[in-house]
Amino acid sequence: MRAIDWVDGHIRFLDQTLLPHEERFVDTTDVAVVAEAIRSLRIRGAPAIGVAAGFGVVVAVRTAAANGAGDIRGAALEAIDELASTRPTAVNLFYALSRMRTIVLHHPGGRSLGAALLAEARAMQDEDVAACDRIGRHGAALFNGRTRFLTHCNAGALATAGIGTAIGVITTAARQGHVERVFVDETRPLLQGARLTAWELRRAGIEAVLITDNAAGSVMRAAKVDAVIVGADRIAANGDAANKIGTYPVAVLARHHGIPFYVAAPLSTIDRALESGDAIPIEERAPEEISEWGGKRVTADGVRVFAPAFDVTPHDLITSIITDAGVLAPPYGPAIAAAFERR
Amino acid sequence: MRAIDWVDGHIRFLDQTLLPHEERFVDTTDVAVVAEAIRSLRIRGAPAIGVAAGFGVVVAVRTAAANGAGDIRGAALEAIDELASTRPTAVNLFYALSRMRTIVLHHPGGRSLGAALLAEARAMQDEDVAACDRIGRHGAALFNGRTRFLTHCNAGALATAGIGTAIGVITTAARQGHVERVFVDETRPLLQGARLTAWELRRAGIEAVLITDNAAGSVMRAAKVDAVIVGADRIAANGDAANKIGTYPVAVLARHHGIPFYVAAPLSTIDRALESGDAIPIEERAPEEISEWGGKRVTADGVRVFAPAFDVTPHDLITSIITDAGVLAPPYGPAIAAAFERR
Repeated sequence: MRAIDWVDGHIRFLDQTLLPHEERFVDTTDVAVVAEAIRSLRIRGAPAIGVAAGFGVVVAVRTAAANGAGDIRGAALEAIDELASTRPTAVNLFYALSRMRTIVLHHPGGRSLGAALLAEARAMQDEDVAACDRIGRHGAALFNGRTRFLTHCNAGALATAGIGTAIGVITTAARQGHVERVFVDETRPLLQGARLTAWELRRAGIEAVLITDNAAGSVMRAAKVDAVIVGADRIAANGDAANKIGTYPVAVLARHHGIPFYVAAPLSTIDRALESGDAIPIEERAPEEISEWGGKRVTADGVRVFAPAFDVTPHDLITSIITDAGVLAPPYGPAIAAAFERR
Repeated sequence: MRAIDWVDGHIRFLDQTLLPHEERFVDTTDVAVVAEAIRSLRIRGAPAIGVAAGFGVVVAVRTAAANGAGDIRGAALEAIDELASTRPTAVNLFYALSRMRTIVLHHPGGRSLGAALLAEARAMQDEDVAACDRIGRHGAALFNGRTRFLTHCNAGALATAGIGTAIGVITTAARQGHVERVFVDETRPLLQGARLTAWELRRAGIEAVLITDNAAGSVMRAAKVDAVIVGADRIAANGDAANKIGTYPVAVLARHHGIPFYVAAPLSTIDRALESGDAIPIEERAPEEISEWGGKRVTADGVRVFAPAFDVTPHDLITSIITDAGVLAPPYGPAIAAAFERR
């Protein structure tokens, strides 16, 4: 199952808003459909968004060429801008679009631009598949015995082009017989844990125990968790990590209970241009994602809503960062710099 | 607005499961209706449950008398057992039923038992109203300037016979001009924060900002919260406090950010028979409260659910306990003992 892929000249993606009830794939050659899918979280997860954006530029260029557009490079740059406006926090989106832009700017234009862009998008897809595999191997080596994990949101196959980041570590460890069970935070407001992570774990034959985000503290206090592992949407040069809202509280709880807290992400999630997590832009979502359920309002009129989609976990709460270039230990500044140097 | 009351010979309660959409009051003389209402959280909040249970015994006895039952005391004791089985964590329920049982056991029986029980139930209601007022006064005295609160679940008028405990403190402080705004955790799974607390605060003209439970960490980290205040369902002799699931994580976060964490509750919520919070029975709710929404399943088949309704905040995370007998400071063992002595 690939949540995002290139099939017979078009993009095919799984509409994740319909999971776990329905596995509906959408085929499209329309970049506007891709942009809308990213905005509305039909396609989600930092690495998956990056790959989708790459393919999005390809379909825009091919459509422009098919329609006989004169300025194909202009169409490509327009698509890049459109896709860049979808979501602000995950850096993989901007990393992917930056690579696509480089191809556009260095290409003479004309019909072969589409092929060059497709090659680059496919390369990024392949790189992400390989990065996930390496993250899984590096991470799984950290665990012995029957480990009881807790995770937040979804950093699985649905969030990447490959086996996932945090969930890739868990499924790799499970194949080595090192997973007892996984506590899955439901992850309000959009329930990626309940809908996606629990579904992925069940498909992988791993015991999933769904809890409200509120119950993570009790479960840790009862000594039922050996390790927390999560993904990331953007990591600053000092190791501060932005991830789904609620990750930071889990990190504080893990520290309070002496439980290791791991972040798993490819180097493409690290934004070395940002000195610390304070500079990471945090997306705010529509208030209705909290104040309504199924179109029905769940709170009183006149109540304001604050709906940040992400929070930042400061580096000092992170035990290690599991990357495709190995497991990084604090201090993260030099560790990250060294990982990029040896890449 | 009284969430639970005695009106013209029957019980009248507000069905809180319908809020904020509909303010529907239920009139009943059937103890089974009261028991079901407590089980399904139509009536909820530790003090309110206690008062409802008192009136529940009254209607059982009056019905038995009206039906010409021979053993009216037996009917009373049966009703007490039925009500005691509804929910295990809030101690006010058992405190109230214990007082009703004492009346039954010391009464000669006969038709005047109903009147004696009604007098006791009304006394408990009046005591709770007065306790809330005193909690509000004692608590409000702790705050100056424009305080930005965060609260979890609902410890308001809906949860008591009076103005509430934690929310009573906030509304009292607001009348003194000392409240800037209140961040309201939505409080999964049953959204008492979104549905009830935000509604109560808006009715009181206080600015309410609804957040997911996951966002409490971000809001604290951004230095937007001056004080956390919550209610309690049972407090042990050492000050450990059971309250709605998710309270303990909020207490850990408050400690991490150096924010004071207050528990507001009447002495009737303190169970001196329990040495520590470890002995407090924690209710587990039906998995469907998490795995379903509006009858529709939100997670995959085969996913286990762990659904504790409460957690225990250890006394060392609590800045003070605001009671009707004054503000108790650590160490709570002696402070609680002294408060009961001067009662």
